[in-house]
Amino acid sequence: MHATLREIKRTPEGIKTAQRAFEEFVTNSDFLLPREVVYTGCGSSHFLSQPLAMATTRLGGRGVALPCSELLYSREYYPVGKPELLVSISRSGETTEAVKALESLDVPKFALTAYESTLSRKADYALIVPTHEESVVMTHSFTAFYFAFLQLLNASFGLETYDAEMTSELTREALKNEGYIREITGEFDFRNVIFLGSGILYPIALEAMLKMKEMALFWSEAYQTFEVRHGFKSVADEGTLVVLLVNEPFDWHEKLTKEFQGQGARVLTIGNGDTGADYFIDLPKVDELLTPILHLPIIQLLSYYKAIKRGLNPDQPRFLSKVVKW
Amino acid sequence: MHATLREIKRTPEGIKTAQRAFEEFVTNSDFLLPREVVYTGCGSSHFLSQPLAMATTRLGGRGVALPCSELLYSREYYPVGKPELLVSISRSGETTEAVKALESLDVPKFALTAYESTLSRKADYALIVPTHEESVVMTHSFTAFYFAFLQLLNASFGLETYDAEMTSELTREALKNEGYIREITGEFDFRNVIFLGSGILYPIALEAMLKMKEMALFWSEAYQTFEVRHGFKSVADEGTLVVLLVNEPFDWHEKLTKEFQGQGARVLTIGNGDTGADYFIDLPKVDELLTPILHLPIIQLLSYYKAIKRGLNPDQPRFLSKVVKW
Repeated sequence: MHATLREIKRTPEGIKTAQRAFEEFVTNSDFLLPREVVYTGCGSSHFLSQPLAMATTRLGGRGVALPCSELLYSREYYPVGKPELLVSISRSGETTEAVKALESLDVPKFALTAYESTLSRKADYALIVPTHEESVVMTHSFTAFYFAFLQLLNASFGLETYDAEMTSELTREALKNEGYIREITGEFDFRNVIFLGSGILYPIALEAMLKMKEMALFWSEAYQTFEVRHGFKSVADEGTLVVLLVNEPFDWHEKLTKEFQGQGARVLTIGNGDTGADYFIDLPKVDELLTPILHLPIIQLLSYYKAIKRGLNPDQPRFLSKVVKW
Repeated sequence: MHATLREIKRTPEGIKTAQRAFEEFVTNSDFLLPREVVYTGCGSSHFLSQPLAMATTRLGGRGVALPCSELLYSREYYPVGKPELLVSISRSGETTEAVKALESLDVPKFALTAYESTLSRKADYALIVPTHEESVVMTHSFTAFYFAFLQLLNASFGLETYDAEMTSELTREALKNEGYIREITGEFDFRNVIFLGSGILYPIALEAMLKMKEMALFWSEAYQTFEVRHGFKSVADEGTLVVLLVNEPFDWHEKLTKEFQGQGARVLTIGNGDTGADYFIDLPKVDELLTPILHLPIIQLLSYYKAIKRGLNPDQPRFLSKVVKW
């Protein structure tokens, strides 16, 4: 079995690792997350910084996310404001830009990483989630990092934390769609794929787009769900798979599904309710902030099986390395 | 001549129209833009909302941009804060979501549009820039809207406005690259294109990506410049054109250019200084907030000539209409 597939399948275990890391952190430290937080990261870690910023805002704080390089070189264009904390995210803790970014704001620094590393040592606080991955691309560690930090947000804001056992079990259920996903990629040899998500599912659509490029070297796109009608949809036809990540669909999602079908494209809806799609993965109803955790393993499997279908080895993505340095 | 090409070539005239619209607005109204502004739009208008938000922040205010549909349906995830004004942008002024978005925040409303329209009538204030375009896709009106609003920002914040005559002349100079752009698209039949920009040039990269899809039905991508190394670059090879939009290049831009060339891709640098690229368009040094105005006609020409090369009619983009309604 490819290391990448093995790592995706470790998602349920990753949630438990995340819970332990969170518990250890709150046991050893009385640090609470403040309300105004800037999150930064590169690539997948930037796409992870976005749902964390969104969760912060949603829970009553103010979260802003931006890529490390923009924080380093174009900060004056972004509404960074006067944050009380900078959270820098890097799986290895050795990404040049993530380490450099720590110096960019004169506020307390927090590292979110899988290792004792340059990043964790340079930061004032570190949440180390030891989901050590063999795969070059980030898979279950994304989900685990998100869950661990979400728990810390809840605890810091005086809210109830999630049930880790139950969440882990939900990801196990989500992974049961593997056979169906393999079937879809087997029967429909799509030429491009468009991922759509709104709110907290938008960065998950972005991460899906990136996974598809990394593993399958593939033409993939991601938009805020209804934005796609404004020009982008021109590229969708008989060769296109549209993946609709959705929490609670409403009539616009159904209209959108029909519109793409009218252009010849096929739609895969992943969510709590069908939209009249060609393919449908039914997810249980959970708190909205947990929805990324259910969608992530599914979109990772989709990229994995698309890569296999194309005869590629997802363990050896072209031109990429595990740690990006300058 | 295609209407789309004609409209691109009207950019110098559009700047003058914008200046007149700005002057008329300040003559007829003593309204000044506040410091905290939320900008919204769909598609190209959303990509226009971003440099406007960035300019607002850069000039000492706080600008936040988000697509209309996210403002309507997922607002709670974005750090909207307590803005003093909502600016809704729509070329026609009849886009369903742009009109609906006006109702989403309980603050004064401002319309940026080309017509007396539903949007302008529903808003408290309207800056009407009458750049009426025959083309389905938004071209010189994007540049004109940006310039008119930038002038209003400067005037509102007590800063010097730009010289419209000179700016118009600069766009005329930029358009002189038409022959070279035609040459590039003629000699290099690229299979995909990646636009890169940082800060205020990032949304221009996004707009370039959209133009390419609308006109040329083409695999196009856009990233914050240095983000591209974090996974996305896997899709770049002998068939790829990388377009680097840059103000003042430094050594990382040169390294990035070399890295892509090492993967077999060709690089087109558009900016004030070469990066060792395969193709180079030299732009004059201007105030950073004016750089989008120089880049826009060039990237529009690139999409236009790619469409022609592919045998498509840019005046009739597939599946698209001038005004998007629900």
